[in-house]
Amino acid sequence: MVGGDAAGMSAASQARKRLGSGELEIVAFERGHFTSYSACGIPYWIGGAVKDRDALIARGPQEFRDAGITVHIRHEVVAIDLDAREVVARDLDGGGERREGYDHLVYAAGATPVTPEWARIDGEGVFGVQTLDDGTAIHAWLDRDPPPRRAVVIGGGYVGVEMAEAMVRRGLAVTLLEKSPQPMSTVDPDMGERVREAICGLGIEVRTGAHVQSLETTDGRISAVVTAQGTLPADIVVLGLGVRPNTGLAVRSGIPVGVTGGLRTDLRMRVVGPHGPLEGIWAAGDCVQTVHRVSGQPVHIPLGTHANKQGRVAGINIGGGYATFPGVIGTGVTKVCELEVARTGLTEREAEAAGFAFVTAAVESTSRAGYYPGASTMVVKLIAEKRTGMLLGAQIVGREEAAKRIDALAIALWNRMTVEEMTALDLSYAPPFSPVWDPVLIAARKATDAVHAAG
Amino acid sequence: MVGGDAAGMSAASQARKRLGSGELEIVAFERGHFTSYSACGIPYWIGGAVKDRDALIARGPQEFRDAGITVHIRHEVVAIDLDAREVVARDLDGGGERREGYDHLVYAAGATPVTPEWARIDGEGVFGVQTLDDGTAIHAWLDRDPPPRRAVVIGGGYVGVEMAEAMVRRGLAVTLLEKSPQPMSTVDPDMGERVREAICGLGIEVRTGAHVQSLETTDGRISAVVTAQGTLPADIVVLGLGVRPNTGLAVRSGIPVGVTGGLRTDLRMRVVGPHGPLEGIWAAGDCVQTVHRVSGQPVHIPLGTHANKQGRVAGINIGGGYATFPGVIGTGVTKVCELEVARTGLTEREAEAAGFAFVTAAVESTSRAGYYPGASTMVVKLIAEKRTGMLLGAQIVGREEAAKRIDALAIALWNRMTVEEMTALDLSYAPPFSPVWDPVLIAARKATDAVHAAG
Repeated sequence: MVGGDAAGMSAASQARKRLGSGELEIVAFERGHFTSYSACGIPYWIGGAVKDRDALIARGPQEFRDAGITVHIRHEVVAIDLDAREVVARDLDGGGERREGYDHLVYAAGATPVTPEWARIDGEGVFGVQTLDDGTAIHAWLDRDPPPRRAVVIGGGYVGVEMAEAMVRRGLAVTLLEKSPQPMSTVDPDMGERVREAICGLGIEVRTGAHVQSLETTDGRISAVVTAQGTLPADIVVLGLGVRPNTGLAVRSGIPVGVTGGLRTDLRMRVVGPHGPLEGIWAAGDCVQTVHRVSGQPVHIPLGTHANKQGRVAGINIGGGYATFPGVIGTGVTKVCELEVARTGLTEREAEAAGFAFVTAAVESTSRAGYYPGASTMVVKLIAEKRTGMLLGAQIVGREEAAKRIDALAIALWNRMTVEEMTALDLSYAPPFSPVWDPVLIAARKATDAVHAAG
Repeated sequence: MVGGDAAGMSAASQARKRLGSGELEIVAFERGHFTSYSACGIPYWIGGAVKDRDALIARGPQEFRDAGITVHIRHEVVAIDLDAREVVARDLDGGGERREGYDHLVYAAGATPVTPEWARIDGEGVFGVQTLDDGTAIHAWLDRDPPPRRAVVIGGGYVGVEMAEAMVRRGLAVTLLEKSPQPMSTVDPDMGERVREAICGLGIEVRTGAHVQSLETTDGRISAVVTAQGTLPADIVVLGLGVRPNTGLAVRSGIPVGVTGGLRTDLRMRVVGPHGPLEGIWAAGDCVQTVHRVSGQPVHIPLGTHANKQGRVAGINIGGGYATFPGVIGTGVTKVCELEVARTGLTEREAEAAGFAFVTAAVESTSRAGYYPGASTMVVKLIAEKRTGMLLGAQIVGREEAAKRIDALAIALWNRMTVEEMTALDLSYAPPFSPVWDPVLIAARKATDAVHAAG
């Protein structure tokens, strides 16, 4: 296992479940200090909602060792010899190197935060949020005395928004910089506008259309962010510019990557080269590309939920079983203060890029029967193919009990339902849970009308 | 429209949307005082969560009249002449009768609470919970001076449990009688047991295996419920024994009913007789039977959500459009105190009755990432066909954010997914919303293992 986080250790566990130690020796190399942790939980740990770092760790190295899996933390694989079928791993603390032969190699090296040229400064206080080690470093920085007072978060996607909220909760003055016209560009602008309002409601200053030019340091520490629109003093900078598949080692070793920069795999998570699958070479997690089931295009969508599934599939197959990972549909969810934001399928922009002609319908409804205490407003937006009416994408913005409804839409979309078919769905109804016409059904009705009207 | 509640008035509204007053005259007869109200909301109004009866009314008679629909409340249709194509309606207050011809008849007479022989007493204080008039009568009875102190609810289904909770909230001492070994027999016994605990936690005395023999009155008022297991004093009795399709008038008029006692319709909600659809005769709502898409059997599942959909479909077709109602899959949800209970598809008992060989898998997981504040336990149970692994049914019991997840399972089931296919579903994940393996996915994995193990 090249990498001992979600993907690698899921693969290791599944293979171990099927083959005993006498049948398969499993060795995992992990560059960091931790195995199998929730990177998605880091913002909540920084913000204080999660008190203890260890709560984010699903299984530590010793637990895997107890299960018969050899784990070397702080070991970075620096070379893969495909012909000799062995890897070279460097001990990042001890300094030595060790060689390890393999029959199966699982490349699960994850992703690294996008770091533009201007962010590579010779100074402290600039952080990505990708590993638990990153989280530990941010925590230590915020705990300095005197503590940092002004934070600048660069990038308004999931991580940026979550980290901005976390630092507000830590009492910092926070500015969020986003180069697009709206934060949360993973949803359509009409939905993103509601996210902007929620972020501003937290007291975060949001600057869209912002172009960062450089970072300034004073005494070896970050002191300001220089943008085309002015200079912002900063005691900490967090980069939320997305991540890139961590494939440098693969490429150096002759393992090819796909058009998105991630490793290509087949359905069973075997790495695919120009001449077909590479025997015994597997990949899973944030370093791979996968297929978007709606657009049919290769995509790189690094999410823990995919990493776990892909690792599991690789491990089952290595263990002699049969499992496949059939691709993704772009489902995502986050929470900003009380606002829940969810999406699945394609946004308008993505649908257009994929070549679809489509209609959209957005409805405002409530989370419970309008007369039931605690009912709150939610907006459901559907995107459906012109003529066929096939659901292409969906977005939800609301408050309590809103976002998880995206799963229903994700499954409708996965099954290529039309919005008209969806109007008949037998969804649950009782006053504490929805109006008699569930918001999803109301949206499906309106989208059906739009499909008919578009002819 | 024979009946002016959800089904009838949905049909009226949809037909009116498509045809103007010059093209179609619409007349609705409603026996009660109200149109288009939420019968499902009655327990919450009785219990005080909903303050005002009018909040339960979606649209009153005058609103329909303003929309060009003639509404006669307190008018009961007492005869339908299929040959002459006219109905006779009796004015329940004024006492006269009026005849009304029709081109299209919509039979939407709803359902009536099951009332065994022993419940038909000559005395006050025994109530069904079907119409808003029933709710009004219960409210008035509870507001008497001195107020009733002891309530007995007979029947432990949705309505019985919701009414028992409502009366606890009103300060009454409540006993719930159920003849089965568990309350909420709409879910499997293992899930129903959790419901029993929640009900008892509210201070409700639950007596299962109870056989009611008679009701006793004193001075013309209910005073006790006599069961084979003893006599219970009672100042109010609520019947939650289910409902029967209200088809007496249809049968008297020569409109046939199906095996469940409800009217049979085709996909467009035209009433079907022994020789095919009856021209211009439509039916919708609690008085019709429909098809269960999993078992393929005719079922009578009276729910507001079906009534609204069926009425809408009838109205679109009457208005010259095209719409179909393709059946149901038995989705249902309720809340007992903080406990949420949901189901879709078939229970074990129903699957057996339908002739399926099946496996089951139940998993306990959490509503959020385990480390995220507020995570609470939920149980997801799946029933899958042996060999094919096709999902046949699902049940969820949990606390906040649990029950509405049944919709995702309902849509998977609607699309005839196998539990193995479901393990790959791209469901939403972020720590405030689910563990990285959503409870639905964990259940699908366990069910897949069960299918494989069963061979």
